[in-house]
Amino acid sequence: MSKHSEVVGLYPGTFDPITLGHMDIIKRAARLVDRLVLGISTNPSKNPLFPLEERVELVKAETAFIEKEHNMVIEVKPFSSLLMTYAEEIGATMIFRGLRAVSDFEYEFQMTAMNYKLNPDVETVFLMADPSYQAIASRLVKEIASFDGDISAFVTPNVREKVLEKMGKAV
Amino acid sequence: MSKHSEVVGLYPGTFDPITLGHMDIIKRAARLVDRLVLGISTNPSKNPLFPLEERVELVKAETAFIEKEHNMVIEVKPFSSLLMTYAEEIGATMIFRGLRAVSDFEYEFQMTAMNYKLNPDVETVFLMADPSYQAIASRLVKEIASFDGDISAFVTPNVREKVLEKMGKAV
Amino acid sequence: MSKHSEVVGLYPGTFDPITLGHMDIIKRAARLVDRLVLGISTNPSKNPLFPLEERVELVKAETAFIEKEHNMVIEVKPFSSLLMTYAEEIGATMIFRGLRAVSDFEYEFQMTAMNYKLNPDVETVFLMADPSYQAIASRLVKEIASFDGDISAFVTPNVREKVLEKMGKAV
Amino acid sequence: MSKHSEVVGLYPGTFDPITLGHMDIIKRAARLVDRLVLGISTNPSKNPLFPLEERVELVKAETAFIEKEHNMVIEVKPFSSLLMTYAEEIGATMIFRGLRAVSDFEYEFQMTAMNYKLNPDVETVFLMADPSYQAIASRLVKEIASFDGDISAFVTPNVREKVLEKMGKAV
Amino acid sequence: MSKHSEVVGLYPGTFDPITLGHMDIIKRAARLVDRLVLGISTNPSKNPLFPLEERVELVKAETAFIEKEHNMVIEVKPFSSLLMTYAEEIGATMIFRGLRAVSDFEYEFQMTAMNYKLNPDVETVFLMADPSYQAIASRLVKEIASFDGDISAFVTPNVREKVLEKMGKAV
Amino acid sequence: MSKHSEVVGLYPGTFDPITLGHMDIIKRAARLVDRLVLGISTNPSKNPLFPLEERVELVKAETAFIEKEHNMVIEVKPFSSLLMTYAEEIGATMIFRGLRAVSDFEYEFQMTAMNYKLNPDVETVFLMADPSYQAIASRLVKEIASFDGDISAFVTPNVREKVLEKMGKAV
Repeated sequence: MSKHSEVVGLYPGTFDPITLGHMDIIKRAARLVDRLVLGISTNPSKNPLFPLEERVELVKAETAFIEKEHNMVIEVKPFSSLLMTYAEEIGATMIFRGLRAVSDFEYEFQMTAMNYKLNPDVETVFLMADPSYQAIASRLVKEIASFDGDISAFVTPNVREKVLEKMGKAV
Repeated sequence: MSKHSEVVGLYPGTFDPITLGHMDIIKRAARLVDRLVLGISTNPSKNPLFPLEERVELVKAETAFIEKEHNMVIEVKPFSSLLMTYAEEIGATMIFRGLRAVSDFEYEFQMTAMNYKLNPDVETVFLMADPSYQAIASRLVKEIASFDGDISAFVTPNVREKVLEKMGKAV
Repeated sequence: MSKHSEVVGLYPGTFDPITLGHMDIIKRAARLVDRLVLGISTNPSKNPLFPLEERVELVKAETAFIEKEHNMVIEVKPFSSLLMTYAEEIGATMIFRGLRAVSDFEYEFQMTAMNYKLNPDVETVFLMADPSYQAIASRLVKEIASFDGDISAFVTPNVREKVLEKMGKAV
Repeated sequence: MSKHSEVVGLYPGTFDPITLGHMDIIKRAARLVDRLVLGISTNPSKNPLFPLEERVELVKAETAFIEKEHNMVIEVKPFSSLLMTYAEEIGATMIFRGLRAVSDFEYEFQMTAMNYKLNPDVETVFLMADPSYQAIASRLVKEIASFDGDISAFVTPNVREKVLEKMGKAV
Repeated sequence: MSKHSEVVGLYPGTFDPITLGHMDIIKRAARLVDRLVLGISTNPSKNPLFPLEERVELVKAETAFIEKEHNMVIEVKPFSSLLMTYAEEIGATMIFRGLRAVSDFEYEFQMTAMNYKLNPDVETVFLMADPSYQAIASRLVKEIASFDGDISAFVTPNVREKVLEKMGKAV
Repeated sequence: MSKHSEVVGLYPGTFDPITLGHMDIIKRAARLVDRLVLGISTNPSKNPLFPLEERVELVKAETAFIEKEHNMVIEVKPFSSLLMTYAEEIGATMIFRGLRAVSDFEYEFQMTAMNYKLNPDVETVFLMADPSYQAIASRLVKEIASFDGDISAFVTPNVREKVLEKMGKAV
């Protein structure tokens, strides 16, 4: 139990880019573990805006203050193996998933049930973001920015700047 | 963080009676905390089969082995106050909820979002039971037993015996 | 198999009153079985508009033409036991349920999964009504009629007459 | 069309009490019509905290500023007839419904589809409240207040005071 | 308010091709505004059956009678900018969306919530099509036609002819 | 009716590969018909792991025992036409679909409603797999195997071997 050993959690995602919704879940997860690994999925099929290394750097920069605030450790790492294999490698006992009021729950249900079969000792933990952040999707953030819409309500100023730079738009 | 203090979780419910579905969630929650309080709701409006004291006793009896297996503390306590007030009283930082593939998610969403406003420091943590236990509802267990149906696939032998006794049926 | 023995199906409900939605499902089920038992639930807790006997008579009257059209047998019978026990009594191998695009699927999922445990040899068969009938609920039909609204789009002329008579309204 | 005649909308509800969620929908509806009737349902079966007259007064007091801000007319009226009959009586061409990400959509779907049959000329218009207000339910507001929880994030200061007074609690 | 200025609504879509479901929503929206802009999305990623200009022409031809019937203005225009930017350009105060009993509500919820942040003065208005039209999807219409199935229950005779011609099939 | 003629059902799918979830549905369907056609969709757009002929062979091998156990006929056949056209060709009066507690119900609803229009005499019959099999998706089985995860809980030993061979992995 948590008294006797370090509690490690894994929050996997593409983070292309990290949004205020991701950060809300990370803050919540940070309170439940000693070490939180943010696993940045390589996911080449999704054709990301930011290459893997830049996503890792961006997530690191945006979450550093959470680490301090909660007196715990946040590690940001790329991963390209099976989620459960990766969880086992890093010694995670919890996999965090954001739970939206409306979400692609079929995928979550399938993945969770199949992960239970792969390793019943790693728990999938669903956290619900603040309702005002639940609707933020990285995909729509990019779509809005690409059409010159204002994304400052969905990401931090730093992330907004990086997205606009990457798209060759005036900040 | 969990390194520095005992992690306390609260799993509230009516437990009338405790089912294999409840027990699956309790086992999962037991791995995430040092102390798990099973808050037995008085809920007089639901007109329970078992009076509060008997539900407390039954839950205690059924969960004692989990406590040992996971080397942590399980406490079974009645509560009749507001859920968040009770969580604060017992020092819980997590409230556990069972997440079914299909569930009355509206109520969960409302309660969680409103609880966030009442106390943003207590996290609601959703755990998904094993699919083979997700469909078990205390209400249907009682309905089946009342019609002389066999409930042995849904509760432990001890709980089955108690339900039949309470209904004045042959065990 | 159906080659060797009569195929019996059970479609249970309160039918208070029978609507065009129920009749659409009954017509669909009638094509899949040799004998269809319409099990009229006594359900005293629901405080029905029509007493059990009148509901049985009304369902019989409204479904007689389906029996002829499909050259099979429809039986309308009250039942007050556990659904699965009743299915076994009448030799049913299928229990029919209407599937709406939006429905109280949690209850259906729980009941079906628990029924599988009670008797794995009786199949629950979900049929989808024509979309134009899916939204019809007996409860709303009665509510509309009680406020003098026109229910002729939801029930047959005969059922409409019976509902208005029962409510002491001019037909 | 709106060019040629006054546009009237109806937003029905129990409003026991009016919440910030209701007010968000009312503000949205106010922009779409010339006259908005807030129909306060008598709904005796729900056993409301506030009697009908007090709910009418409270809704009037809370929505007066919206009327001014949007330069339109808001009327607060009790109604006990069938919704569609009442809509016809007041000349409404739109019935407003709040749409939550998660909601009892089955009831909405049934009511809307059946209302289309009753009068195809009255449109049901679904508006989505701001996500931060979607989770607020009058029922939970009352439950929280009854347990001495703080409801100031869910209702206006005036409504909060009225709820506490009605429950005999210190404001 | 509608008394003082023209009410403009926007109903965006790919309309590849326009179905009876689209037309049901357009008729409903036509009653709520003075001017309705049908924004035909260029959406090159969807690889449409009909090029943009032909979709614009087809939608114009099919909706001309609605304009007359409702004594209002319908404009059919291509657009390739951000939805909210386009709504602002044309002075729309309402964006219409079709609401199905079952739908990809996650996307709708995200888009609506993010649009509220972009411009809180443009309202997203959900209308529910008649249940008998809710299930019609342009994608399935094309799939059925490509396999020589009969699509006359889903589109007008004119659209059916255009689809078959475009696919090089006998009308 | 089934007394007078052979009852034929169609269960269509890609079966790439056949899983324990598919087999649960096939066993259920086998009890309801005299002849069950497993229609293996060519579906070139899905870029299957196994070519069509191998999928047909694999499904045949895995379902042979069901045929014997239930004393009925199972036929495994590729098909590339419209589902309804194919159902008519083989004389099917039922199309079987697996119903998951959480599923892409929008697609099912649309396809069923549109199929009703194409041929009202062919019934779509939804069967619910055992909850412990509902979460198994061929797509995830392949994903897990490709990352060297253990798929033995989701497919038979024979299918597992074939998947590993096809992926060039040690069995």
